[in-house]
Amino acid sequence: MFFDHASTTKIFPSSLQQYVEVSENCYYNPSALYKKGLEAKNYVEKSRSIIKRCLNASMLDQLIFTSGATEADQLAILGSIRKNGGKLLFAEGEHPAIDQEAKDLGQKGYRIEFIKLTKEGVVDIVDFKKKCTPDVVFISIMHISNETGAINPIASLVQIAKQVNPSIIFHSDGVQAFGKIKVNVQQLGVDLYTISGHKIHGPKGIGALYVKQGITIKPVLLGGGQENGKRSGTENVPAIVAFADAATNITKDIEQHYQHVLSLKQYFLDSMKGYAPFRNHSFGSPYIISCSFIGMKAETLLHSLEQYDIYIGTGSACSSKKTNNRTLQAMGLSQEEMISSIRISFSFEQTIEEVQYLVEKIKYEVDRYLSILYKK
Amino acid sequence: MFFDHASTTKIFPSSLQQYVEVSENCYYNPSALYKKGLEAKNYVEKSRSIIKRCLNASMLDQLIFTSGATEADQLAILGSIRKNGGKLLFAEGEHPAIDQEAKDLGQKGYRIEFIKLTKEGVVDIVDFKKKCTPDVVFISIMHISNETGAINPIASLVQIAKQVNPSIIFHSDGVQAFGKIKVNVQQLGVDLYTISGHKIHGPKGIGALYVKQGITIKPVLLGGGQENGKRSGTENVPAIVAFADAATNITKDIEQHYQHVLSLKQYFLDSMKGYAPFRNHSFGSPYIISCSFIGMKAETLLHSLEQYDIYIGTGSACSSKKTNNRTLQAMGLSQEEMISSIRISFSFEQTIEEVQYLVEKIKYEVDRYLSILYKK
Repeated sequence: MFFDHASTTKIFPSSLQQYVEVSENCYYNPSALYKKGLEAKNYVEKSRSIIKRCLNASMLDQLIFTSGATEADQLAILGSIRKNGGKLLFAEGEHPAIDQEAKDLGQKGYRIEFIKLTKEGVVDIVDFKKKCTPDVVFISIMHISNETGAINPIASLVQIAKQVNPSIIFHSDGVQAFGKIKVNVQQLGVDLYTISGHKIHGPKGIGALYVKQGITIKPVLLGGGQENGKRSGTENVPAIVAFADAATNITKDIEQHYQHVLSLKQYFLDSMKGYAPFRNHSFGSPYIISCSFIGMKAETLLHSLEQYDIYIGTGSACSSKKTNNRTLQAMGLSQEEMISSIRISFSFEQTIEEVQYLVEKIKYEVDRYLSILYKK
Repeated sequence: MFFDHASTTKIFPSSLQQYVEVSENCYYNPSALYKKGLEAKNYVEKSRSIIKRCLNASMLDQLIFTSGATEADQLAILGSIRKNGGKLLFAEGEHPAIDQEAKDLGQKGYRIEFIKLTKEGVVDIVDFKKKCTPDVVFISIMHISNETGAINPIASLVQIAKQVNPSIIFHSDGVQAFGKIKVNVQQLGVDLYTISGHKIHGPKGIGALYVKQGITIKPVLLGGGQENGKRSGTENVPAIVAFADAATNITKDIEQHYQHVLSLKQYFLDSMKGYAPFRNHSFGSPYIISCSFIGMKAETLLHSLEQYDIYIGTGSACSSKKTNNRTLQAMGLSQEEMISSIRISFSFEQTIEEVQYLVEKIKYEVDRYLSILYKK
């Protein structure tokens, strides 16, 4: 039983089928001038339109395919900033793809500032307003936290920022939002928005950056000039088509999925009510539960659940080398809460029975562990 | 009949099968701590070893998976250079992924120099020796030209460079060499070597950079710290496994394939002997024929062959926006030869009958076009 869907998901059978069909029947290079090349190009352009629709983008907006969200995040940042001394704002607890890039820019002499999080895990509006001064040129704040599911009020933040300085470029990493809550990039008002294939039951190795019409970004990956000059490298046609298929599937019943997953999370939280070691840190997306079982280290709990074929996360699995959890730290959690913090993340396909089983096994293992601990 | 295999290839059925199997059975995130994550990680590491063996690398050498050759080329360049004022050398006629990056660095104030090509399309040794001065810190010269198949004497060039300055980092883009000629990175002596999945009947969206032991490169794509901190982003496990499968398949019978393709090219060249409009520009790899049919524009010939279901290239299809062909220009071809230059590139699976058909149709269409032209 897989409860780590925020780290990755299984590809939809139909998306995998599309991948196979395109690989077999239209493996041509979209840059080629003959009709078979154009057929491949048509696949890419059709997929682009499909995903734009899923984002509720205007057809005049751009969508640049990348190798994944990490590259899309990098393109958003490096493609936007200019060496004019303007300030760059990032939230604390952003995904490492943003956080590491931000810190690297800081070391290179760019002026960067981080916005504090509240104890619910969203950006602190007071701190945001304080730091969002007219010299800010770029802001990146994730839509939904991959660690806690906290949902940032992106539309309001964009509005505040644009009032301060209309030319601020506002980027949001929407990896944990797209396919889980209804995303309307036009209503959000963002200039740039990152999405990923493998987080929505699409293929790995594909992502995209939404770019609002009128916004000019510089390419980061140079070469053959694919993706309208914005991202070079032969287009990953089968993965792009499969990504569009997954986006279609996941968007179709998004409201029902949301309600269903909400009931899963609610069941879990209800079951933990009054359970002494339990602490909840997740107050946003139903797809993610961040919580601690005080006294039992996260890794110990993770491994003890494996015997039941239950797989949970400990903070972000995207980060292969992590020490402290930056997000939980920014939320002001105690060391005790942090070292025991796990992440449970759902897929729409999961059932209440699975969650019942999860609750039962967690309680059994935590009780067992703590009783041994206290005996000593 | 597809004669544009230098632009891309059809994935091996077994590689596609591997892609599907891993997608279905081991879609987990290799960074996750539970055993399913480790299984995914094992797939990645096993594939890495397989590809290293195909490159005749030492097991102590590194191999960094990227989203393709364009990214691997970028990582080779940006990961190696330091702002110390040293000179960077590139050959003329490199793939756009190298050429564009080099020119961008030139605009950013780096000292870059381009090495001339001979009329056979390889680097001019005299010019190379002249420019390879002790202040050179980085050299990038492709192994086999994607335009003409010209084979650069990489081992000799590395030797010359290392005698001038042993700390020079030598990179070679091996995209058109790997899987076509026997590549032994240790004998070549290169520090960095780029390979691509979709050029060897593997999947699109995957490539790798070979990094010799002891060579330290800086990451370009920052984030979760995957690929030993050298390339962040969730590993594209199914594509990596499929890439390793393709590398195994293509390397296994490489000598036989070479001889077979050599006979195809020889047949083509023999058939064109004495054919007045024909000019050959390719003197290296049998996998690529670069030639002109004087008087008939390349695009016209390309489209006229489509009616026979024959697909050929016009120079590099990797480059979606090209004006003049840089490589042919560097070789000193006339404008007349350049605008009529086509690229025919073979796969080991092609037959002599297909080439006979190709020759027949080319001659028919060229004759027909030129006779109409002269009638006017």
